[in-house]
Amino acid sequence: MTVIGEGDDVLLYLDGKRTYLVRVEEGGQFHTHKGYVELGELIGRPYGSSLVSSLGVRFTALRPLVRDRILKTDRRTQVLYPKDIGYLLIQLGVGSGSRVVEAGTGSGALTMALADAVRPDGMVYSYEINPVFQRVAAGNIERSGLGEYVELREGDVTQGIDVADVDAVVLDLAVPWLVVPHAYEALAGGGVFASFSPTIEQVMKTTAALDGLPFVEVGTIELMLRNITVAENKTRPQTRMLGHSGYITSARKIL
Amino acid sequence: MTVIGEGDDVLLYLDGKRTYLVRVEEGGQFHTHKGYVELGELIGRPYGSSLVSSLGVRFTALRPLVRDRILKTDRRTQVLYPKDIGYLLIQLGVGSGSRVVEAGTGSGALTMALADAVRPDGMVYSYEINPVFQRVAAGNIERSGLGEYVELREGDVTQGIDVADVDAVVLDLAVPWLVVPHAYEALAGGGVFASFSPTIEQVMKTTAALDGLPFVEVGTIELMLRNITVAENKTRPQTRMLGHSGYITSARKIL
Amino acid sequence: MTVIGEGDDVLLYLDGKRTYLVRVEEGGQFHTHKGYVELGELIGRPYGSSLVSSLGVRFTALRPLVRDRILKTDRRTQVLYPKDIGYLLIQLGVGSGSRVVEAGTGSGALTMALADAVRPDGMVYSYEINPVFQRVAAGNIERSGLGEYVELREGDVTQGIDVADVDAVVLDLAVPWLVVPHAYEALAGGGVFASFSPTIEQVMKTTAALDGLPFVEVGTIELMLRNITVAENKTRPQTRMLGHSGYITSARKIL
Amino acid sequence: MTVIGEGDDVLLYLDGKRTYLVRVEEGGQFHTHKGYVELGELIGRPYGSSLVSSLGVRFTALRPLVRDRILKTDRRTQVLYPKDIGYLLIQLGVGSGSRVVEAGTGSGALTMALADAVRPDGMVYSYEINPVFQRVAAGNIERSGLGEYVELREGDVTQGIDVADVDAVVLDLAVPWLVVPHAYEALAGGGVFASFSPTIEQVMKTTAALDGLPFVEVGTIELMLRNITVAENKTRPQTRMLGHSGYITSARKIL
Repeated sequence: MTVIGEGDDVLLYLDGKRTYLVRVEEGGQFHTHKGYVELGELIGRPYGSSLVSSLGVRFTALRPLVRDRILKTDRRTQVLYPKDIGYLLIQLGVGSGSRVVEAGTGSGALTMALADAVRPDGMVYSYEINPVFQRVAAGNIERSGLGEYVELREGDVTQGIDVADVDAVVLDLAVPWLVVPHAYEALAGGGVFASFSPTIEQVMKTTAALDGLPFVEVGTIELMLRNITVAENKTRPQTRMLGHSGYITSARKIL
Repeated sequence: MTVIGEGDDVLLYLDGKRTYLVRVEEGGQFHTHKGYVELGELIGRPYGSSLVSSLGVRFTALRPLVRDRILKTDRRTQVLYPKDIGYLLIQLGVGSGSRVVEAGTGSGALTMALADAVRPDGMVYSYEINPVFQRVAAGNIERSGLGEYVELREGDVTQGIDVADVDAVVLDLAVPWLVVPHAYEALAGGGVFASFSPTIEQVMKTTAALDGLPFVEVGTIELMLRNITVAENKTRPQTRMLGHSGYITSARKIL
Repeated sequence: MTVIGEGDDVLLYLDGKRTYLVRVEEGGQFHTHKGYVELGELIGRPYGSSLVSSLGVRFTALRPLVRDRILKTDRRTQVLYPKDIGYLLIQLGVGSGSRVVEAGTGSGALTMALADAVRPDGMVYSYEINPVFQRVAAGNIERSGLGEYVELREGDVTQGIDVADVDAVVLDLAVPWLVVPHAYEALAGGGVFASFSPTIEQVMKTTAALDGLPFVEVGTIELMLRNITVAENKTRPQTRMLGHSGYITSARKIL
Repeated sequence: MTVIGEGDDVLLYLDGKRTYLVRVEEGGQFHTHKGYVELGELIGRPYGSSLVSSLGVRFTALRPLVRDRILKTDRRTQVLYPKDIGYLLIQLGVGSGSRVVEAGTGSGALTMALADAVRPDGMVYSYEINPVFQRVAAGNIERSGLGEYVELREGDVTQGIDVADVDAVVLDLAVPWLVVPHAYEALAGGGVFASFSPTIEQVMKTTAALDGLPFVEVGTIELMLRNITVAENKTRPQTRMLGHSGYITSARKIL
C-alpha cells in the first residue's frame, strides 16, 4: 500500500466542484474559505484519507492523476481536454518505450499525458516557440514527477524537427500544415501523425499537406462529451456542454 | 530503426476501408481478391514498406497498434470503441506499474489497451465468467504480445474479487452495480472505479450503488464521435454516425 | 408592402447579441445605454428601416417573428427552444384549421407558435394549473396578436381534458404520464400526441402509459443544436452549447 | 369528426418500420407480402380505423401528415429531414398569408411543408432548374392537396428571381451564394433568408455573400437528432444515427 510522503502532491477534494492540488510538507498549512488544514498530518497515511479543517469541514487527499494535472493547467494556453488527450493517446498508439515529438508544448498538459504513457523507457521531445509558455510547462512537468521522460526544446518546428525515427508526432499549434513535411521526415515508417486544431480551415490545410505526401489513413474526427446527471427522477444530460474544443486529424506514414 | 521480423504481426493496408492483421512468416502467402502477396518479403524491411500482389496491387505493412487490434476483435462480444477506451485510460489514470482489475474480459479489447498502458511493471487482472469468451480473449492477447501483463481469471465478480489494493477497477458487464461493493474492497484508497454500460438503467443502478459507499467524484458521461470528410468543396461531417456505444460512469474511493 | 403602424410591435436590433421587443407609439421613446430613439419615427416606414439614437447609434426595426417572441418569454417557466418547437410543429402535423390541446401553458411560448400555425381557422386550447403563469402567458399572447386563436383554460389536465376530437395534444408539464389517458380520449382517430420532458424518468413513464393504450409510432428523440462560427480562418462550432433542453416523445392514436 | 372519403390518401400503418401512402378508392385493393386489403372498406370510417388483410394481418389507416409525405419523397433528390424542415419553418417565421420563394424545388418535400404553413392565404413560389425534378415535385404536391398554394416555376435563380416583396427566401441548391443578391432584391424589408447546405464550403461562401449586403443576424447552425430506445432495462440512444444532413444559414434583410 502506497502512503503519502513528505513532498508528495495530493489532490485535496472538498466537493464535486472544488479540488486543490497541493504539496504535502511537514508544518505546511492549506487555507481556504472553509478553514485551514494541516498538510503534515497526511504523511504516512494512505491516499483516500481525510483531514478536518479548522472550521470542521472535511477534505480528502486523493492521488493526483494525469487528468487532474491537465485540468489544473492554465486554460488560456490550453484547450485540449482529457477526452481529446485520451483519444490522441490511443490514436497515436504510444506506450512504454515510444519516442514522441510534440509541438507546441503549451502549458504541458498533453506533454504530461504523453510522458506518463511512454515511461519508463520512452521519451517525449516537446517543442515550444514561446519561452514564457515553455517556462510554465517546465514547472508543471517538473512538479508532476515526469520530468525525466521529457526533453523540452525551444524552437520553431515549421523550420524543421531535429529528431528522427520517432513513433509519433503530435501537433497542437496554429499552422500544423507547415509542419507536416518535417513530421514526415521525423517519423519512422508506419509512424503516426496527429494534429489538434480548433478551426476547419486548419484541418483543410493540414489534410491537403498530408494528402501530398506518402501518408495513409488520413482522417479527421471530433469528439463531443456530454455530462449526464444521474439522480432519482432527475436523470438527464446536463444543460451546459462544451460544444467544441477542436478537430483531431491523424495519418500514418508509409515509405 | 525497427524492422519487421519473422513471426511479427503486420497490419496490411489496402485502402481506407480494408486492412488485414497477418503474421509474417518465411514462405507465407496472404490471399485476397486483389491477388496474393509473399509475406516473407517483408522480413528485415522497415514498417511502412509495401508489397505488390500477384495482380499488381499495392499493400503496405503497418505496425499494428493497440487500436488496430481493438477494431479487429469480435464486435459481437465487444461494443467498446477506441474513443471509449482512450477516455477510460485517462479517466482511470493507469500507467506503467498500475495494478488494474477488469471484468468482464469479453474479447480482450480493453484488456490489451490496459496491458499496453501498465507495461512493463504493472498487471491487469481480468475476470470473465464465460469460458468461451475467455478462450477467444486469450488468443487475442497472446497474439498481441501483451500476455505477460495480463492474468486471465475465470470467475463471477458479483461474488467477489480476489485481488486487493489495486489502482483501478473497470467494468464492462451486464450488472455492474452488483460488483460495486467488491470493487470498493479491491481498490486502494484514492483508487478509481469506472464502468461502461449501454443502458441508462444500468447507469442509474450503478450510480446508486456508488452513492451508497465512500466514493467521491461520482459522474457519468457519454462520448459522441463524428467522422469529418475533408476534401475540397466536400468538407462535412459524414452522413452515418455511431449514435451511442455506452455511458461511462466513474468514481474515486475514499477511506 | 407592409409598413409599421401605430401600436405595432417591432424588434429593435442593435447587434448580434442585443434586440428589444418594443411597441411603436407616436411620441414614445426607447432608452438604452446607447442613447434613446424616437419610436414614432418608424410609423409609415417599412420593416427593416433604421433609427439613429441620441448617441448616434443605429437601431433597426425588424418585424417580430414567433421565434423572437419565444426567446423573449421568461426562461424560468420555459425551457422549450425554437429547435424543439419547430420539431413539435412538424411532428404534430398542425396547420391552418387544426384544433390542438396544450398543457401547461407556461409562459405561452409554445402556445404562440401553435396559434400561429393553426390560424386563421383553428384553435389552441391551452391549460395551465398555475394562475400566475397563466396571467403572464395571457399578456404575451395578447401582445403577439394571436389571442383570437387561443382559449386559455385554468385547470388540472391530470383530472381530464374537456375538449374532444382534437387533432393534436402536446404536453410540457411535470407528470405527462398521468395525462396520457385523457389525451387519448381527447384525440380524434389518427391524432398525434407529443410530450416534452427534461428527464429520462418522465420519458420512461410516459412511454409506458402510451404503450398501454392504442397508440402507434411511439417514439422518443432529442435534438442537439450547434451554432457554427463562420469567418475566414475562424470557422468552427462554438465553444458553448446547450447540452440538453428535453426529450420529445410522440405517438399517434388508433381506434 | 372527419371521416375517410373516396379519393383521400391514407397512411397505412403495418408496424414501426412499414407504412404505405395509398389512395382510397371504391374497389381498390392494396397488396403486400402480408396479404391484400380492400381500401374501399375505409370509406366513411374515421382515421385511426383498421383493416384486416387477406392473410389476417392488421393495417391501420392514419391521416397523412406533411412529415409523412416528406419521408415518402425520393431521398435521392432530397436530403432535408423533418428536423431541418421544422427548424426552417420556425426560423423563416412563415405562417398563414406568407409569401415565400423556394429554390430548388427538388422533390417538393420542403415545398409541401411551406405550402401547408402559408395556407390558406399565402403562396409559395418554388423554382427548379431541372424539369425532371419539377415533374416529380408537381406530382407529389398535387397529390398532397396543397397545389393551390404553390406556383412551380422552371428557372435558374442564379440569374434572378421574378417575384418581389416576399416574406422569406429559402434555398436548397448547390450554389446558394450566387442567389444571395437576388434573394436580397426579392425580400421585403425585415424578410428572412435561409439556406440549407451539406458542406462547410457552401456555408462559407454563402455567409461571405450575406456579409457583403445589408443583412443582420447572419448565423449558421446544425441540428443533430438522436432516436432514443425506451423500454424497461433497455433505455438508451440508438446505435445508428444520422451524423449530418446539412447546415442551416439564415439572415434578415435590413434596408
